[in-house]
Amino acid sequence: MDTATEAPPEIPRGGEMVESPFLTQLVAVIRAEDSHGQWDMKSDVDLLEEFIVTKEERREMPITGDPEPELIWRLTRFYDAVGLMVEKRTGCMATQMQKMHHEGFGRVVLIAGRLVVVSKHLRDVHRFGFETWAKLAEAGDKLVDEAVKLVEQFPEAARA
Amino acid sequence: MDTATEAPPEIPRGGEMVESPFLTQLVAVIRAEDSHGQWDMKSDVDLLEEFIVTKEERREMPITGDPEPELIWRLTRFYDAVGLMVEKRTGCMATQMQKMHHEGFGRVVLIAGRLVVVSKHLRDVHRFGFETWAKLAEAGDKLVDEAVKLVEQFPEAARA
Repeated sequence: MDTATEAPPEIPRGGEMVESPFLTQLVAVIRAEDSHGQWDMKSDVDLLEEFIVTKEERREMPITGDPEPELIWRLTRFYDAVGLMVEKRTGCMATQMQKMHHEGFGRVVLIAGRLVVVSKHLRDVHRFGFETWAKLAEAGDKLVDEAVKLVEQFPEAARA
Repeated sequence: MDTATEAPPEIPRGGEMVESPFLTQLVAVIRAEDSHGQWDMKSDVDLLEEFIVTKEERREMPITGDPEPELIWRLTRFYDAVGLMVEKRTGCMATQMQKMHHEGFGRVVLIAGRLVVVSKHLRDVHRFGFETWAKLAEAGDKLVDEAVKLVEQFPEAARA
């Protein structure tokens, strides 16, 4: 017997796009790298799509060898965006430093004055990415919020 | 007319060796890297001699191209020694991070908790070295002293 069933609504890769100041900042950071305007015709979603890594994609990703330069580039832009949001909210400029190991673990810090406002130990750098837009935005917001709290806790060190 | 003149006393490369807890620490750091005992027969002075760069040597050093790995190795050991001295005096362990550019400038930081206890911007990494033993010891001591002061100023951040 043939019953008419409704097709499930198609969920786009990365889920629903979200409104987020962090994603806006991340797009701005990426566009700032495009000095020749080669990406002018790309939409914001196009520019960010590589930040999305679905569960299926994740499973298929190799986790050996040096992480690719484009991946490190994306990771760096992500933390650049965090740093700029921190600067907007606190007035403290934060510089990024990274320490990456071949095996795919590493550490990223953002330093304002004498204060480490973000300190992230990374495993699985090879698979850097987020399942959904919502998770990407949330991850950025969380780091920014924590950093702002630290600056408020140690204002002198952040301005030293 | 032939006057007997005293020959000037011969000054060894690096000048007079000095007693210095920093130099002792630096030797210990270097020996700790020697897991196969290949340097057992080397004296402390032998192990440290590459840290000495005289004015003449400095002038002859190229300043282009990537700094050699051995040079980065020495620089890293120098800051390792600083970090260990800071730990001995404050109880706070400090981790090193570096950011090096091909052109020979860069930055080294030592991080304890959330505090950047040492932050050194480097120019001329290619020529990393010290004219004398006294200057090598002094440079280490100065960095350690400044770091200890910072830990005393921001104890909570250093232990965060």
